[in-house]
Amino acid sequence: MDKLTYAVVGTGAIGGYYGTKLARAGHDVHFLLHSDYDYVRQHGLKVSSCDGDFMLPSVQVYSDTHAMPKADVVLVGLKSTNQHLLRTLLPPLLKADTVVVLIQNGIGLEADVQSWFPGLWLAAGLAFICSAKTEPGHIRHQCYGSINLGNYSCPDKKRIDAILSDFIESGIDAHEVEYAEARWKKAVWNMPFNGMTVALHTQTDQLLSCPATRQLIYEQMMEVINAANALGITGLDESFAQKMMETTDAMVPYSPSMRLDYDFGRPMEIEYIYTRPIAEARHVGAAMPRLEMLERELRFLERN
Amino acid sequence: MDKLTYAVVGTGAIGGYYGTKLARAGHDVHFLLHSDYDYVRQHGLKVSSCDGDFMLPSVQVYSDTHAMPKADVVLVGLKSTNQHLLRTLLPPLLKADTVVVLIQNGIGLEADVQSWFPGLWLAAGLAFICSAKTEPGHIRHQCYGSINLGNYSCPDKKRIDAILSDFIESGIDAHEVEYAEARWKKAVWNMPFNGMTVALHTQTDQLLSCPATRQLIYEQMMEVINAANALGITGLDESFAQKMMETTDAMVPYSPSMRLDYDFGRPMEIEYIYTRPIAEARHVGAAMPRLEMLERELRFLERN
Repeated sequence: MDKLTYAVVGTGAIGGYYGTKLARAGHDVHFLLHSDYDYVRQHGLKVSSCDGDFMLPSVQVYSDTHAMPKADVVLVGLKSTNQHLLRTLLPPLLKADTVVVLIQNGIGLEADVQSWFPGLWLAAGLAFICSAKTEPGHIRHQCYGSINLGNYSCPDKKRIDAILSDFIESGIDAHEVEYAEARWKKAVWNMPFNGMTVALHTQTDQLLSCPATRQLIYEQMMEVINAANALGITGLDESFAQKMMETTDAMVPYSPSMRLDYDFGRPMEIEYIYTRPIAEARHVGAAMPRLEMLERELRFLERN
Repeated sequence: MDKLTYAVVGTGAIGGYYGTKLARAGHDVHFLLHSDYDYVRQHGLKVSSCDGDFMLPSVQVYSDTHAMPKADVVLVGLKSTNQHLLRTLLPPLLKADTVVVLIQNGIGLEADVQSWFPGLWLAAGLAFICSAKTEPGHIRHQCYGSINLGNYSCPDKKRIDAILSDFIESGIDAHEVEYAEARWKKAVWNMPFNGMTVALHTQTDQLLSCPATRQLIYEQMMEVINAANALGITGLDESFAQKMMETTDAMVPYSPSMRLDYDFGRPMEIEYIYTRPIAEARHVGAAMPRLEMLERELRFLERN
């Protein structure tokens, strides 16, 4: 197989990090940028990383997907609040066998993109990383950095393997996982912590050090696990919630992306992180009253 | 029956208002004061009221219940966060037939006081009033003002009637109600609005104008109603929740007492407004997941 050509749609904390790692390792990566286009065209991309800083002084940047070459792999790092933009951003990049990897948070992302592009080959990218874009063209990578790929509708298994190889060769810890289980496992962490840090204007460590909210976070995790089980997804039980609690105990005090979005006045990813999984759970009779309440609090905060 | 002697324990927004109305009408009222004692002894009590301002330049004030005469009726207007003080404050005021009226918010108040004083005659006072103590000896009464009395353990029905007569003669809209039903009906409003205005740092009107929180408030009201029904309390159903929504729609934008307590750094009445009713509901198998979550959020905010 020839070397894969990559397009990065949404060159931020996530797309910018993984795309830059691939480009540094010599892969052919084309970056779509919006507000940072002029800056990055002149100065390149910079990653300040816990694994060592690096800089790509010259990168292939674009402000319009119509100007980009068609890609074998599209890495989508858009905020899911802009998901509708994919309807117009993706078509110029697509060949018959392009794999689009949605490196985004939430449930229902692949289903929506598939409904817009029925024949598209889709995969989920589940990033385990603490990173943020702090200035134009500058990504700060604080810790972690692995990515899991879950095949959603790619009929060519070798293509997924090739992407994994490229990631691993580029120094990224990457694995293939079962799609639905992986998305819901990620939701076990995302649903409690993203919203609760916004609702109580706090960080992960404070939520876990107060006995009342520690218990609440655990109950919210169990709501996600019970919903996943009701949806027929195995491999999640109480021990997974306990593991997530312990993992978070061991983390530095952390503000999840939704807290940063809220603090900086950006739209929050309420739809795919809350509304969609709650609707999927309700559809199979699984109640998520605490996470439903949290979603309503977030809708209020978004408005006010 | 001779004229009743009243003691007011906790001369604030509630105890101060009702006590002052009774005293103005010529009843024998003795006020216990703490921080405002010196001021009120010199300047009296002032009520700025939507029904017309009034002033009592000279009132019978005390800083210690041991100095007070024994009372026929004790009106307790203490914050329930200080409930434990009743164990020492009450005994000097009590005769064999004293009725203690707890004009406080929450569930479990009478049960606790009864456990400390097994033979005591107890009643609940349910105040429907918007008032606040804004300065020493100065109560601002914004609107409403009625009070319902629910007999908890007073074997002498005539005594309850006599108290009601005194209230009514003093220009207070007062009625007798069934104790448990009245306490839980009040909780239908108190549990959603007190905590939610704190958790989202807002007022009643904003919670009701956002569709997401409007729905949440209604669901929380239904948790209270379902718990009350599970406890065998009739007279509360969906129509009562709808009525409470409409009543609150018609109110001026309002900050309930818990929001004021939080804003001014005072302890919040979480125990009797949330923890106790939640425990009573759980005891009969009625779940209150949204109000339990709210309690946990409040415990977090209280700590941080």
